[in-house]
Amino acid sequence: MKKIYYLDDLHVGQRFGSGKYVLDEAAIKRFATEYDPQPFHLDHAAAAKSFFQGLAASGWHTAAVTMRLFVDSEFKPAGGIIGAGLEALQWHQPVRPGDELSVETEILELRPSRSRPQQGMVKARVTTYNQRKEPVQIFVARLLVERFVP
Amino acid sequence: MKKIYYLDDLHVGQRFGSGKYVLDEAAIKRFATEYDPQPFHLDHAAAAKSFFQGLAASGWHTAAVTMRLFVDSEFKPAGGIIGAGLEALQWHQPVRPGDELSVETEILELRPSRSRPQQGMVKARVTTYNQRKEPVQIFVARLLVERFVP
Repeated sequence: MKKIYYLDDLHVGQRFGSGKYVLDEAAIKRFATEYDPQPFHLDHAAAAKSFFQGLAASGWHTAAVTMRLFVDSEFKPAGGIIGAGLEALQWHQPVRPGDELSVETEILELRPSRSRPQQGMVKARVTTYNQRKEPVQIFVARLLVERFVP
Repeated sequence: MKKIYYLDDLHVGQRFGSGKYVLDEAAIKRFATEYDPQPFHLDHAAAAKSFFQGLAASGWHTAAVTMRLFVDSEFKPAGGIIGAGLEALQWHQPVRPGDELSVETEILELRPSRSRPQQGMVKARVTTYNQRKEPVQIFVARLLVERFVP
């Protein structure tokens, strides 16, 4: 049973790791076929001539896999992981077939809600790495987290 | 055949519409099972008691569908739609089973690259609406777009 975190159980600088997730070529093409059907996500020959110089996963696929790793991590806020939005997201380099992704989350800011005493906002940086520990994607998320109300 | 846009074919204030995409309950649960397996995306009873007060699509599913509508729209930059990142993203309200989404893109800024004469950066606001024309998601993307080199 993993620990559940209310807002006041978290602290700035706290970090959470994740498991690992391999994006294979079939999964990259399946996601792209449904959500991002551009040649450089679907076809080796077309991808070789593109900006990516080889087949690459859709950035939204990387984002979706990041969410899966985040949900399965030890970061278990009370009420679930509920995103209000992102302050920024960068895709730093392509994700290639066979890359193994993992995620590190760092708490940057904690703020109780002024209007809702049972709720607060957590700002967290979520960095997605490949197997060479190179960041492939970094975003800063604003999450709604419950406060413990006795 | 749709028009292909090089950087210098675009102008600030230009808008692009999209087709429509219905997110049904099966698709919402399928995406959530793979990428965001939290109760409020998977189960009506659990969702009713959650922050969302009913089954809601993962925000990353809304983002992925937005990309599909964007790729299928009349916005066809030379070299494809290549995102460097997002400046911000907000999820404004839940997407429910059966909601019909559409996207409007507005060009906010155009900037030739200083170091690469064949490339430039486009900043665009991409707003995703439901069938009641309420925004469910807004992001500002930074896209790499080719310049025409004779």
